[in-house]
Amino acid sequence: MDYGEESLKLHRSLAGKISVVPKGKVNYDNLSLYYTPGVAAVSKRIAEQPYEVFNLTWRGNTVAVISDGTRVLGLGNVGPEAALPVMEGKALLFKVFGGVDAVPLVVRSKSEDELVDFCRAVAPTFGGINLEDIESPKCFYVLERLRDILDIPVWHDDQQGTATVILAGLLGALELTGRDLKNSRIVLVGMGAANTAVFRLLLKAGVSPSNILAVDEKGILSPQRLEEFEERDPRRAVCKLTNREGKTGHIPQALEDADVCIALSRPGPGVIEPSWIRKMSASPIVFACANPVPEILPEETLNAGAAVVATGRSDFPNQLNNVLVFPAMFRGVLDVRAKKITDGMCLAAANALYSYARTKGLSTGYIIPRLDEFEALIEEAVAVALEAVREGVARNNNNEEAIRKIIKDNILRSQGVLGKIV
Amino acid sequence: MDYGEESLKLHRSLAGKISVVPKGKVNYDNLSLYYTPGVAAVSKRIAEQPYEVFNLTWRGNTVAVISDGTRVLGLGNVGPEAALPVMEGKALLFKVFGGVDAVPLVVRSKSEDELVDFCRAVAPTFGGINLEDIESPKCFYVLERLRDILDIPVWHDDQQGTATVILAGLLGALELTGRDLKNSRIVLVGMGAANTAVFRLLLKAGVSPSNILAVDEKGILSPQRLEEFEERDPRRAVCKLTNREGKTGHIPQALEDADVCIALSRPGPGVIEPSWIRKMSASPIVFACANPVPEILPEETLNAGAAVVATGRSDFPNQLNNVLVFPAMFRGVLDVRAKKITDGMCLAAANALYSYARTKGLSTGYIIPRLDEFEALIEEAVAVALEAVREGVARNNNNEEAIRKIIKDNILRSQGVLGKIV
Repeated sequence: MDYGEESLKLHRSLAGKISVVPKGKVNYDNLSLYYTPGVAAVSKRIAEQPYEVFNLTWRGNTVAVISDGTRVLGLGNVGPEAALPVMEGKALLFKVFGGVDAVPLVVRSKSEDELVDFCRAVAPTFGGINLEDIESPKCFYVLERLRDILDIPVWHDDQQGTATVILAGLLGALELTGRDLKNSRIVLVGMGAANTAVFRLLLKAGVSPSNILAVDEKGILSPQRLEEFEERDPRRAVCKLTNREGKTGHIPQALEDADVCIALSRPGPGVIEPSWIRKMSASPIVFACANPVPEILPEETLNAGAAVVATGRSDFPNQLNNVLVFPAMFRGVLDVRAKKITDGMCLAAANALYSYARTKGLSTGYIIPRLDEFEALIEEAVAVALEAVREGVARNNNNEEAIRKIIKDNILRSQGVLGKIV
Repeated sequence: MDYGEESLKLHRSLAGKISVVPKGKVNYDNLSLYYTPGVAAVSKRIAEQPYEVFNLTWRGNTVAVISDGTRVLGLGNVGPEAALPVMEGKALLFKVFGGVDAVPLVVRSKSEDELVDFCRAVAPTFGGINLEDIESPKCFYVLERLRDILDIPVWHDDQQGTATVILAGLLGALELTGRDLKNSRIVLVGMGAANTAVFRLLLKAGVSPSNILAVDEKGILSPQRLEEFEERDPRRAVCKLTNREGKTGHIPQALEDADVCIALSRPGPGVIEPSWIRKMSASPIVFACANPVPEILPEETLNAGAAVVATGRSDFPNQLNNVLVFPAMFRGVLDVRAKKITDGMCLAAANALYSYARTKGLSTGYIIPRLDEFEALIEEAVAVALEAVREGVARNNNNEEAIRKIIKDNILRSQGVLGKIV
């Protein structure tokens, strides 16, 4: 199938992908309740009791999907208009997989400050913000600043979403190959937003930076390369903490004797050679996640001796797809009215996905739940919500049973209402 | 009925009023068309041919309803969160009466510049912007600047929407009482955003400012009061152009011998006294539009000799309700991809509503179409679209037949899809 042509046809026939509809029945009699004069009482209530905005408006279930269009898919800086179909698609996935109402907002902004100001200004409308397709290093700073300023969860899916799904898959793959997270040697290929976030989450999960090597287009990162990065760039931490022995070279040198390769770099094939895989430790784990074409194709990777292979694609086994994370993550945070998404909540999400797959039975073709396993998403959302309560960032501290019921209802209702997922 | 309590109950049970849903069927097979990899072709197409964003995304049918919460209903400056239920309600009305997808955005902004910057930044997401509940004089400046900067229609409903519906009703009332727009003496009571816009539209409709008197809380405006208003304030034009004879006094003095009273001031009753109506010309026209209670109640007005009375309320005859205008206005501009909403398009909308009511048969209880007369909204949207084409502000210059078909389909489809209006 020519996905591009088919997709253009679908977009043209529907004129976009999402639509805004009333939640309840509307008739001439109840217009005065939906709008004036009745609605004045609702505004007044919120003015007096600000928290009620989450109960009386769409805010409690609605997320903004915000992009400035500076790094859209593999297309680069194509601008806000060209980013809109991607953000609309993301909003659709939020609804289908999480029952979350999501609104695409593409923004014409020139600077980091403008983007931060925009998000700060619009925040009262939403229960959370999902940043998307923003160039690095801007994306690091924008996320960091907004997490500080705002009292609603802010998420950059290309950072935390990818890191969470990678960690979930990694936990399954390590168990399958009899390895242990803390004693495995891990190589990160490509040091954009995604692997920079993977690095951070691995440390949070207890991995020692001495077991990690990171490679970008200039070679292996090391303390010697510190000055290449701006003062606030989180890749400075990668330089400082990894490769203290000062190993030099590129991907092949980094992969020698490594147990795990996590590639989030540029479309292949040919970015990673089979011969380099052969020099890894016995039965290595290789995640080659570039889209639309992995850095090295699964067949080649397996032929070169890899024990477990994963990609970002749905037509190969072990799809490491962010859709496994962002809808359930926001389902969880919205249903306990969390103020933040912490690294601990990302760990909880990854562990929940891993545990679910483990219960179902891990295999080389199944290291992570598939998209149609909605129970996994429910477990994940519950784990996130409970962690938010545990860390004291939830406004609504229900017990586990109550939380599970709300989350299950919300995820399944979306499925039921839509009735469109086969 | 206690509208407030009932409205709170409705809002709580639905958790808001609007929701985001997929437009088409979603299943595991077509996810790759809605999202990656297929969507990349859509982004690429828009990057190459920017106009395609209107055909391939929701932009062609979607409007932002933006407020900073500085002047919400009769409640004042209650802030963005408390404004959200009102904007959500507006979005619902956009869909129900115009088939327009609308997104409430409440904004935490401190200044005129911040609000302008916000709207400019978010504009690539939308086919139009509806400003709402912004304090004056800020609302004048924000509207004016955005109309200059942006190439999508920008509308402030409290200005243009109100002015358009007032003019539509006035045309019917004048005909009923055997008057002529250009030779009638008109008094504007209350000089906030609404009547300032009425003034502007009356001039555009051919009324001489020498036939208009304007009254605010300090009295009748006149050249002597010019310096009370800021340099950019459009009320300076009212001071300059009206009341050159320098008549002084308040509402009663202004109303002496007037043919028409248009009150858009503060809730009554008692703002206007029956004895003042008696001093107007024989069989005067009185529009008392304050909400929730008119400046003078219809019964008193009629008893004082008024020939035609109108209010903003649905429980009296002749409701002058903006819902008669904004959904059809945006239906019209979206369906010809207009870049602007001009005063000429407001006149066209008012004339279309008036003509429709005229065809149906004007009476003292029917000077303007009722909300359930969808054919009137279709005629109005067609008139707006044709005027946009005529003025050269449409990107899509279809002929009348084609425009009428698109508009009719879009308004009726919304009705059909919803199936919720009784």
